[in-house]
Amino acid sequence: MPTYTPPVRDTRFVLEHVVGLQNHSNLPGFDAASPDVVEAVLEEGGRFVAEVLFPLNQVGDRHGCTRHEDGSVTTPPGFKEAYRQFVESGWATLGNVPEYGGQGMPHVVSVAFQEYMISANMAFAMYPGLTHGAIAALIAKGSPEQIATYVPKLVSGEWGGTMNLTEPQCGTDLGLIRTRAEPQADGSYSITGTKIFISSGEHDLTENIIHLVLAKTPGAPDSSKGISLFVVPKFLVNADGSLGERNAVSCGSIEHKMGIHGNSTCVMNYDGATGWLVGEEMKGLAAMFIMMNAARLGVGLQGLGVAETAYQNAVAYAHDRRQGRALTGAAEPDQPADTLFVHPDVRRMLMQMKALTEGLRALCLWGALQVDLEHNGATEEDRRLAGDLIGLLTPVIKGYGTDMGYAIATDAQQVYGGHGYVAEWGMEQYVRDARIAMIYEGTNGVQAMDLVGRKLMQNGGRAAQAMLALVQEEIAAGKSEEAVVDIATRLEKALGDLQVASLWFMQNGMKNPNHVGAGAVPYMHLMGIVAVGYMWLKMARAAARLKAAGEGDGTFLNAKLITARFFAERILPDTGALRRKIEGGADSVMALEPEMFLAA
Amino acid sequence: MPTYTPPVRDTRFVLEHVVGLQNHSNLPGFDAASPDVVEAVLEEGGRFVAEVLFPLNQVGDRHGCTRHEDGSVTTPPGFKEAYRQFVESGWATLGNVPEYGGQGMPHVVSVAFQEYMISANMAFAMYPGLTHGAIAALIAKGSPEQIATYVPKLVSGEWGGTMNLTEPQCGTDLGLIRTRAEPQADGSYSITGTKIFISSGEHDLTENIIHLVLAKTPGAPDSSKGISLFVVPKFLVNADGSLGERNAVSCGSIEHKMGIHGNSTCVMNYDGATGWLVGEEMKGLAAMFIMMNAARLGVGLQGLGVAETAYQNAVAYAHDRRQGRALTGAAEPDQPADTLFVHPDVRRMLMQMKALTEGLRALCLWGALQVDLEHNGATEEDRRLAGDLIGLLTPVIKGYGTDMGYAIATDAQQVYGGHGYVAEWGMEQYVRDARIAMIYEGTNGVQAMDLVGRKLMQNGGRAAQAMLALVQEEIAAGKSEEAVVDIATRLEKALGDLQVASLWFMQNGMKNPNHVGAGAVPYMHLMGIVAVGYMWLKMARAAARLKAAGEGDGTFLNAKLITARFFAERILPDTGALRRKIEGGADSVMALEPEMFLAA
Repeated sequence: MPTYTPPVRDTRFVLEHVVGLQNHSNLPGFDAASPDVVEAVLEEGGRFVAEVLFPLNQVGDRHGCTRHEDGSVTTPPGFKEAYRQFVESGWATLGNVPEYGGQGMPHVVSVAFQEYMISANMAFAMYPGLTHGAIAALIAKGSPEQIATYVPKLVSGEWGGTMNLTEPQCGTDLGLIRTRAEPQADGSYSITGTKIFISSGEHDLTENIIHLVLAKTPGAPDSSKGISLFVVPKFLVNADGSLGERNAVSCGSIEHKMGIHGNSTCVMNYDGATGWLVGEEMKGLAAMFIMMNAARLGVGLQGLGVAETAYQNAVAYAHDRRQGRALTGAAEPDQPADTLFVHPDVRRMLMQMKALTEGLRALCLWGALQVDLEHNGATEEDRRLAGDLIGLLTPVIKGYGTDMGYAIATDAQQVYGGHGYVAEWGMEQYVRDARIAMIYEGTNGVQAMDLVGRKLMQNGGRAAQAMLALVQEEIAAGKSEEAVVDIATRLEKALGDLQVASLWFMQNGMKNPNHVGAGAVPYMHLMGIVAVGYMWLKMARAAARLKAAGEGDGTFLNAKLITARFFAERILPDTGALRRKIEGGADSVMALEPEMFLAA
Repeated sequence: MPTYTPPVRDTRFVLEHVVGLQNHSNLPGFDAASPDVVEAVLEEGGRFVAEVLFPLNQVGDRHGCTRHEDGSVTTPPGFKEAYRQFVESGWATLGNVPEYGGQGMPHVVSVAFQEYMISANMAFAMYPGLTHGAIAALIAKGSPEQIATYVPKLVSGEWGGTMNLTEPQCGTDLGLIRTRAEPQADGSYSITGTKIFISSGEHDLTENIIHLVLAKTPGAPDSSKGISLFVVPKFLVNADGSLGERNAVSCGSIEHKMGIHGNSTCVMNYDGATGWLVGEEMKGLAAMFIMMNAARLGVGLQGLGVAETAYQNAVAYAHDRRQGRALTGAAEPDQPADTLFVHPDVRRMLMQMKALTEGLRALCLWGALQVDLEHNGATEEDRRLAGDLIGLLTPVIKGYGTDMGYAIATDAQQVYGGHGYVAEWGMEQYVRDARIAMIYEGTNGVQAMDLVGRKLMQNGGRAAQAMLALVQEEIAAGKSEEAVVDIATRLEKALGDLQVASLWFMQNGMKNPNHVGAGAVPYMHLMGIVAVGYMWLKMARAAARLKAAGEGDGTFLNAKLITARFFAERILPDTGALRRKIEGGADSVMALEPEMFLAA
């Protein structure tokens, strides 16, 4: 049976030395996030997820969700009670703003807790996870009345939220939406259409579910410029806040999926359901992107969260399972065989997982800090810089983070050999669960196009230049510090590859935009490696500094330095290959005629 | 619903221009393998698997196998009838030697058919697939009586065969085997122990199942030098060949696995079962490796086989699904959206799948030719060279081939977006099925150690030198041919990376064998890329030659040249990164102390 221990020490190291939580105490919420409070949140939150949510992870996978004939959906055994505890213990409100009942902790601390929740039970974590997106959209675009009606109960966790975008004929291309919204005399709209792949669309965890739905008003153009956002509650809400009649929205079926069985993925039928416009008509895309950007960072975190649990179990198995002998001679001659841990290829996999999970944790938390700064930074320039950085890195955290999450889960399963393929050992679930994160909230190919087609060139490339400058600054500092000079030098080479690739896009993208499209995913990986490398240089510099000052746990700091070196020697070299692939351009990618793809 | 069309045209191109079937008509069986006969085998065999086996692929995944209380196992609906047709149509006997009832077709032709069978239904194909290993071991090591008793019925497909190696405490490290074989007065042995992960261990397809079982005789040393191979039939065989009493071997349970649900993976209990020694006592390892090497090539073929079907469906979906617009402007303005096919990142994935599947097909068939030549080559030198080459490349075909098979299946699923994650579309099954091939018959890490720890250095590196010489020769020829000079030049660079990495191992492996172990998997990938690149250069040269001569289908030949170019521009660049990772050595891989792996 798998186990999970929240990596509190590593989270605290990142919050202190990469995020620099203590340097931002001027920001709202940060004043309250003293080291003691943060430690208590992580320890208590970690204990809650490990004790309450993690034991339900395999249960959720085995039982899945059940749709009944009346359209109601039952979550797996234990989920409802666990959700009740989640709400009653106050974990739902952690990062939300105090004016709507939140605890007002910094977003970065909330994200640290969310990672643990995902690690413990990704399918469960999706229920409150999607609620966060609904809250963000309503606060940003909703009317004061809508906010008052829905937000406090979403913040408390009494109600759940969903995002309804996809339709059978319409995934990435939201211009194809067919769901219609007919204005009614009372100012509401009558919503009719079918939405598919709706995570948490129907379930038994909350007394109401607030659907945010994209639809088209009469006469709206058949493009993404014609879509509007509506709020459609499962139960209408009376003026006094009590629940009124059942709305005409129901779950038509639930999907049988590769993984995340504990989360209900619903076909939602809107049959003249009553909804209300959120924000302006035909400005639904912008409102949707508020949800979407939050959701994309959350999905990036799923890559990390699942990877962390898979990694921990691979480490445990490598220590436990005995097979073969060390290449350098028996490590434990009195035992019938040495542990897997002595084998360099097993160690290579474990180091790869460790270097990527710790690096991604740093990147996710550093990214979460940018979200805090974007909203609450002291100056407009601070807010703009943070907004630029997180805008640029959102597709990278989502795309690169989840590609790596799947690769890590696959490697962790590999350490188990044949047992990794057998359901009862639990490892194959991590691979199946991790797989969805590369697909939903925009496939990773769509993330890459968002990066190279929008974010990279936006405002004259301002965000990318800011990011490059930060990395360059870190490299310059690292190159003068003996303990990390090699890591800094290797990162400089990787950054050079990123710069050359960016220049190549600028020189060739105007001639033929397919040159950029054909290099989009390699570029996203290139930037992901550089961004995580930047995190490793920060962590290595901090570790060396603490070590020299005789502070901290020497063993832990040594591990940081060695893992940084591993990242530099074993992961950074990929940037050269990625750069060369990008320079290959679109010619051989696009040259084949459609009918030539089948050799048969 | 997925579809599958056997890629007969591509197989024939490879057999003609890479394998050069017509140049080997002096070999046994090859004289009969005229182009007409081969075409008939591929067309008819392809039709059989597409019509009979493929429709059962999703059925097998959904229903799985069922173990009953009496230990009997029922295969999924339709499997038994399909197996009957498989045997009656003579497909079981295709590649087997005529003296035991086989049709005596060249191994390479048999492998071409096996690929189709795997593509159509991997779980089904495993039943006869494992029988091949049992036949090979019995022919090589069995007594004349054993051969007469078992081989003809295994060849005909009336009986099935299995390999029983793994035990709960014993996977890769066969020295840990605990199953005991007690000699009996009549010359037989009493076999007692538990074997796990036994593919096709019990089923309802054949009237008897012949288990080949590794066990230890009394007093045998506790190492792999102490194991012997036994043949243990499910039903004892009477002197007249009829079935006698039920042997004391039974299926204790079947595993719930991530994939290949249609194949029964059994825990096999031997409770004083009657068995007979195959070959010499305590020489079981050598006998086992005869099965194992055949099985490893078969598993490499599984990587290709599953990838091919996944690829074909991704192509179809990319042509069918409409979403978004081409970056260069609407391709079909009268449609609501363009097909996925116009998007360069989708095309990049399709090209990557095409370049790898066609390249792996060439490598698998070229490897199969070496098996033919190893056994039947005209001169001892021919046989030795072929044996060297296939010995070296067996771990590469298994390890690199299945890593790529999984990557291709994952990419194919990605093309489907959210639909790829939903079971009814069938794509997620390919990922789950492909995953096992990286694990069984020796994990890919074990393959890599076999490559760098044994095959590379064997006989003074003779096999590797022979392989390098072949690639160099092809490069030299290609560099003087304008149509392929760029591909040849890029392959030369990749070959240089392989040579530098090999040299690095030689210089550093003596000092510390962990330097070799830590680079084993990157090296296996490096050699895999060079080997497939070698195939692509052969194919490109042939295509250019045919095109210049005005022979063949110009469209098909153009596709070969473009895909070769894609391979050179988009896959060969990885060799530089792999070489640099290898040069990183073992230091940062092995430096962390065990307790430092958990950051928590």
